[in-house]
Amino acid sequence: MEIKVMTNVLQSNDDLAKTNQRLFDQHKVFCINLMGSPGAGKTTLLENTLKLLTDKLNVAVIEGDIYTDKDAERIEATGVPVVQINTGGACHLDAGMVNKVLGKFDFNAMDLMIVENVGNLVCPVEFSVGEHQKIAVLSIIEGEDKPLKYPLIFKESTAAVLSKVDLAELCEISIENIKRDILSINPQIKIFEVASRKGQGLPEFANWLISQCPK
Amino acid sequence: MEIKVMTNVLQSNDDLAKTNQRLFDQHKVFCINLMGSPGAGKTTLLENTLKLLTDKLNVAVIEGDIYTDKDAERIEATGVPVVQINTGGACHLDAGMVNKVLGKFDFNAMDLMIVENVGNLVCPVEFSVGEHQKIAVLSIIEGEDKPLKYPLIFKESTAAVLSKVDLAELCEISIENIKRDILSINPQIKIFEVASRKGQGLPEFANWLISQCPK
Repeated sequence: MEIKVMTNVLQSNDDLAKTNQRLFDQHKVFCINLMGSPGAGKTTLLENTLKLLTDKLNVAVIEGDIYTDKDAERIEATGVPVVQINTGGACHLDAGMVNKVLGKFDFNAMDLMIVENVGNLVCPVEFSVGEHQKIAVLSIIEGEDKPLKYPLIFKESTAAVLSKVDLAELCEISIENIKRDILSINPQIKIFEVASRKGQGLPEFANWLISQCPK
Repeated sequence: MEIKVMTNVLQSNDDLAKTNQRLFDQHKVFCINLMGSPGAGKTTLLENTLKLLTDKLNVAVIEGDIYTDKDAERIEATGVPVVQINTGGACHLDAGMVNKVLGKFDFNAMDLMIVENVGNLVCPVEFSVGEHQKIAVLSIIEGEDKPLKYPLIFKESTAAVLSKVDLAELCEISIENIKRDILSINPQIKIFEVASRKGQGLPEFANWLISQCPK
């Protein structure tokens, strides 16, 4: 019975995700779902990548958090339209939560919608919010063993951003081992290596995002 | 309907958690549930703390992971009895999963049972496995904002272990701000500051664990 209910929940989520995606498609908006552990560096990646995007694209952001609007405040400071969703305890965003806030955006002035999910390497992967692509953010100091321990997020994502790569040597982490394991899970995945605060690797990530946008 | 099913799931979990705790109590075993994000340093904390415990206590470990037995292998190398639970996709351990493996341990030769949960700062908190105390592990490089963004784990835990504190200065993280926020959520919580690979702070944590054991 529990499994049946879960199946229904996922089916109902998928239906609403398709509704969201139709809206994105009607307006030729490319939508990504940015996922990763708490502290993976998703918001810092966004803050610093937005600076490289906003003279080329109209970007909008949805910030998902359980509580607080700290992340939305940080994005707002970059000048990009942002709406905060507080899940009030839930460990992931779902399509319904995102659907409810889409009316707050001007889709005619939008090329790219970035949804930053709740910090969680596990649950968000199972709930599409209508995105065209999922992107996994993994701080390399989380440890070399993470891809094989949490494979689903890498299997389902089209790109993986390895963050905090400037700490690799100090923390005795092999980026090559992490890349090898991610590619063993998903040979097609695109991998970026960044140190967001220093700007390292961000132009490559920003250019790739631009290349994915349909207009 | 979804909420009602969730309530039933939690109630049924709580019932089984009580069964587990009765077994611990009958044998005067102190049980802790160690929780934190992927890469918080739970296993490294355990590996290095076990070295300080095993000449004073009989310790046993349950390792929870979605996939792989990498963590159990690391604990096994310390000589401590360990059983790996693979949740096969689930984002947390529950009382039923733990109940099924308890028969594999010799409770008469056990003072302390440490359950290391799946790497997830959100979901494991809601599912008791029968532990006497929950312990939160937070790597300080996850960011100063984490306690207020993920308050429940700190509210429900009796102790918080701040790990990787040796990276505070390099990553421009204020440990004092993190402690202040954790204490604002739970003024009674005991806070430890550790750098597990260097052994820093581990004697204090180990001595506290010993002081909590009933025999």
